[in-house]
Amino acid sequence: MKRKEFKVVFEPSGRSVYVLPGTVLLEVAARAGYILQTPCGGGGTCGKCRVRVTGGSCPATQSCAKILGDARVREGWRLACQARVQGDAVVEIPAASLFESRQIILSDSAGGELEVLPAVRKQFLDLPAPAQDDALSDVERLRAVIGPFKIGIDLVRELPARLRKAGFKGTAVLADDELVDFEAGDTTAFSHGVAFDIGTTTLVGVLVDLKTGLDLAVDARMNPQTSLGDDVIARIRKCREEPRGLIHLQRAVLAAINEMIGELLRQARVEAGSIYEVVFAGNTAMQQILCGVDPSALGELPFVPAFNDALALKASDLDLDTHPNAKVYVFPQVGGFVGGDTVAGVVATRMDEAESPAMLVDIGTNGEIVLFDGKEMLGTSVAAGPAFEGARISCGMRAAAGAIDKVVINESLRINVIGNARPSGLCGSGLVDAVAELLRVGVIDETGRILEPSEFPDGVPASVAKRVVRRDEHCHFVLAHASESATGEPLLLFQRDVRELQLATAAIRAGANILLKMRGLEAGDLKTIFIAGGFGNFIRRNNALRIGLLPPVPCRRIRFVGNTCVFGAKRALLSVSEKRYAESIVRRVEHVDLSLSPDFQMEFGSAMTFPNHDGGDCDAAPDDAVPDPRG
Amino acid sequence: MKRKEFKVVFEPSGRSVYVLPGTVLLEVAARAGYILQTPCGGGGTCGKCRVRVTGGSCPATQSCAKILGDARVREGWRLACQARVQGDAVVEIPAASLFESRQIILSDSAGGELEVLPAVRKQFLDLPAPAQDDALSDVERLRAVIGPFKIGIDLVRELPARLRKAGFKGTAVLADDELVDFEAGDTTAFSHGVAFDIGTTTLVGVLVDLKTGLDLAVDARMNPQTSLGDDVIARIRKCREEPRGLIHLQRAVLAAINEMIGELLRQARVEAGSIYEVVFAGNTAMQQILCGVDPSALGELPFVPAFNDALALKASDLDLDTHPNAKVYVFPQVGGFVGGDTVAGVVATRMDEAESPAMLVDIGTNGEIVLFDGKEMLGTSVAAGPAFEGARISCGMRAAAGAIDKVVINESLRINVIGNARPSGLCGSGLVDAVAELLRVGVIDETGRILEPSEFPDGVPASVAKRVVRRDEHCHFVLAHASESATGEPLLLFQRDVRELQLATAAIRAGANILLKMRGLEAGDLKTIFIAGGFGNFIRRNNALRIGLLPPVPCRRIRFVGNTCVFGAKRALLSVSEKRYAESIVRRVEHVDLSLSPDFQMEFGSAMTFPNHDGGDCDAAPDDAVPDPRG
Repeated sequence: MKRKEFKVVFEPSGRSVYVLPGTVLLEVAARAGYILQTPCGGGGTCGKCRVRVTGGSCPATQSCAKILGDARVREGWRLACQARVQGDAVVEIPAASLFESRQIILSDSAGGELEVLPAVRKQFLDLPAPAQDDALSDVERLRAVIGPFKIGIDLVRELPARLRKAGFKGTAVLADDELVDFEAGDTTAFSHGVAFDIGTTTLVGVLVDLKTGLDLAVDARMNPQTSLGDDVIARIRKCREEPRGLIHLQRAVLAAINEMIGELLRQARVEAGSIYEVVFAGNTAMQQILCGVDPSALGELPFVPAFNDALALKASDLDLDTHPNAKVYVFPQVGGFVGGDTVAGVVATRMDEAESPAMLVDIGTNGEIVLFDGKEMLGTSVAAGPAFEGARISCGMRAAAGAIDKVVINESLRINVIGNARPSGLCGSGLVDAVAELLRVGVIDETGRILEPSEFPDGVPASVAKRVVRRDEHCHFVLAHASESATGEPLLLFQRDVRELQLATAAIRAGANILLKMRGLEAGDLKTIFIAGGFGNFIRRNNALRIGLLPPVPCRRIRFVGNTCVFGAKRALLSVSEKRYAESIVRRVEHVDLSLSPDFQMEFGSAMTFPNHDGGDCDAAPDDAVPDPRG
Repeated sequence: MKRKEFKVVFEPSGRSVYVLPGTVLLEVAARAGYILQTPCGGGGTCGKCRVRVTGGSCPATQSCAKILGDARVREGWRLACQARVQGDAVVEIPAASLFESRQIILSDSAGGELEVLPAVRKQFLDLPAPAQDDALSDVERLRAVIGPFKIGIDLVRELPARLRKAGFKGTAVLADDELVDFEAGDTTAFSHGVAFDIGTTTLVGVLVDLKTGLDLAVDARMNPQTSLGDDVIARIRKCREEPRGLIHLQRAVLAAINEMIGELLRQARVEAGSIYEVVFAGNTAMQQILCGVDPSALGELPFVPAFNDALALKASDLDLDTHPNAKVYVFPQVGGFVGGDTVAGVVATRMDEAESPAMLVDIGTNGEIVLFDGKEMLGTSVAAGPAFEGARISCGMRAAAGAIDKVVINESLRINVIGNARPSGLCGSGLVDAVAELLRVGVIDETGRILEPSEFPDGVPASVAKRVVRRDEHCHFVLAHASESATGEPLLLFQRDVRELQLATAAIRAGANILLKMRGLEAGDLKTIFIAGGFGNFIRRNNALRIGLLPPVPCRRIRFVGNTCVFGAKRALLSVSEKRYAESIVRRVEHVDLSLSPDFQMEFGSAMTFPNHDGGDCDAAPDDAVPDPRG
């Protein structure tokens, strides 16, 4: 059941993406590779994320008019964090609205810092045909023009016929130091690659034009391994206990990857044969399973990966539906569960160049945390569980059409549903919102308990109080009544759902606290916190602070940097030097195994309590009025 | 129908081979990798090839007693060129009897010049098991001890289980810079490789112990492609004209190679899993077909190979029945039809260090000729046809049991049959002998015509004359009557068989003459002629000179160097620097395309006439009495 999608084109680059009705422009832009300035955390108050809708349907909201003024709204200006897509649209992004971090702008016409120098390069050749005084072998004839290269036997086998069929005029395709193809005619215009985030719960793939560095299509879907075990430990156990467990898990993820490649190609109208490189980043267990390498040793002390250095594979090693000789790059790993996703996060944020001390928090089923103290990096991984990705939550779902992604409580409960549909579930950002808002108004207390209406403090609106229902020992909260939902069933937030969020939040916070302690730092010392993850860009910072997900720092030091795993993978795809940088990071990050830390259980215990921290200045005018300095 | 074979052990090395009854010791030694001094061309007159039979059955001949004296014969001394194996035997080879060229002695206890430093090396490791303060990944744990290496995904997949099953004690197997296996326990004693000569007509394989450099087994058989086309041109045509021609040819040779590997393993009682490298050398067309690379462009001007540089493949690329991660090295090529076999010949003879001018003549279905003038090398290839390997000859056969390998005419016709059996055919050396002897006594004239008895000069013995029979226009010669042969059919030398030999001989001689002309040299200027080829070691030099196969030089300048193709391949297998040397040769040999030479047809025409040269000093005492200086 494919829902109607709208096409949004961004100017001046011309990139386009397809999105569901009602998707907020901030997210649409992120899917096209643009991360916008959001110092107010997407609260619609600072006006930094302004964009101009020059065509199509994307109505202004009240905040747009309030912040930008009616005149500007009439010219098409919108707050990207507020305006939602209601039809095909053309959107202009002023350079001033772009977040300045390097991972965002690659080489588009807006000007970027990353040179597009991918491993894959093409060269059109008009070779002399062999003659009696020029009887070089076919391979040497190419080397005479291109210089030295390696060549696999598969291409050697095809080369004589290819050269002659093409009349010795064609395009050499090189990847690193290997000739991967010789194509008849001039095909230099077609050169593509795919960057993948192999998340425990969610897979994200981006199809990239290797000539321009532009994203051509994005696809995300549930990692189908989830049905075989919803966290890393369950999947490792499957590999240990079932003779064909590893094969089943590997096949599941590879099948999804090939489906995603098919979808990306369809979206961008590109041929599989022009994908010459695929880059993967994921945690160590995900990367090992992807490659068919038994992760059993990751399931017992001292959590040993099979490899840490980057792997250079061929498409055929994984049966990928790309060019048959395409290269595959699997990100280098730090150790333990701190894998390619973390390294990609450092590559994407360049946190080692940020104002320090800096911390990267990548929120997913595994939470990865890196602390940079100005000299060294410490990296760790915590098992957060899949709550942030909508799994293990009673009415949880991925951030897709029908998901409640935003919850606000004022006089009454207001929800936002992705795709402007009736709600069918709750995604991660909606869960954080719901709990934080209920905590703020007093329906949930600092221990995470949903109070009985008799225990409510003053000021809980009556319409909200009515939604709290006691059953057996616990209360639950009605997010949507049966009559309001898409399914005809009520959408309920149970006590155990709040517990899941507490566990996930506490794990990440405890990890962050331990890294800080190891370097003798306090939360307040952090000059920058990069929040990464599939949903990271779309949670509200004050809510994240309120539930204690992040160390308490002034809001403006918190940077939402989106899915740094896929951004880092894309950088490696687009630039060989980014791969070398990734490999150098592995040697610079000290792996912290929290299973060895006597403090972890204690930190975890204290982090289970919601701080109910106010978030203070997040939406305050003074912060928003001044330019937002980096870090 | 497997014939009984005898085991011959050589001392002091302990190498052993299995041979058919009646095999001459010179050949037995060659199959074990020892090329003996034969300045008299194996005529039983110089005594240089003396060896001592210290056990078993290998009776002395009259020449043995004549040259060595009765006392020595009683001590077990034999002329290796005369004595034949009649049972299991133990043979001692004195260092003085060995031909001094480097290819012969590798690293056995007799002392050799080739350092055994193969690409394959093994290292026993007793690794620390992972611990909480030592959680290196599996790959890094190995690298910490071995140093950097590459590793294929197949082994990465198996490594975690291998290491743990072995308790982290095992043997790392490295080939070049790649880890190809980790084997439980200490397996450093087992490390093998196979060197192959991929001849147009004959395949030869040698199983080598990579630790000691010793040959463990040898196998030779007909290239089964012969049934699909008996020369290179016919096979190229098959590839051009039949859609599956290439596949059929490749499968045929690969099936034979795997059978040979099986036979070598059986002979040496070695496991397939301990073969870590295979080296192939053959002409350009044979190498391309072996690798599954269409040789069509070799079938038309300007005869372009697909590749010239050496290929580094994996066993799985060719489905070889070896260790699954074994390396495959395919020899570098010069160009045109001058391929890996020629390069291997230069590697085996080190002709660029020989007294110059020097010439290498590799006699096979393609004849390859290299001239070294003291500075540069010229290389060419001629289509000799398979006559020298017993094909296209009415009663021709390979040099195997039942083949007439020697023909002498004195008062009567005397033949020698391999395996002391009744004759069933005529091999290459027997063909050269038969025609040369008939030429010498006057039954064949210089134009190659078998004369009618009425035309015979004086002195043709009556018993020989009786063997000439006229049928239709031509005469033929009866080598064996029906009653004498193994088949019950007479073995006849027809006029057309003499013509085949003339064509083959003339092609090689014309090639040699043109190279000499190109450098302004006369035949007499040649200080060294290396004769190589499957049968090269076992023809008589004066007979080769008599039919004009070689430029007329004093006999002692002619060196029989055996199958230099397989020797060169073996050197590359045993030493990485020999591979680099082979690759450097390719750049030093100038390829001469005889199809471009206006002189070739003329030279070919004149070379069709048998010189009936006397061969002079080949068997004369003075030459044999003095030490045989190199060159």
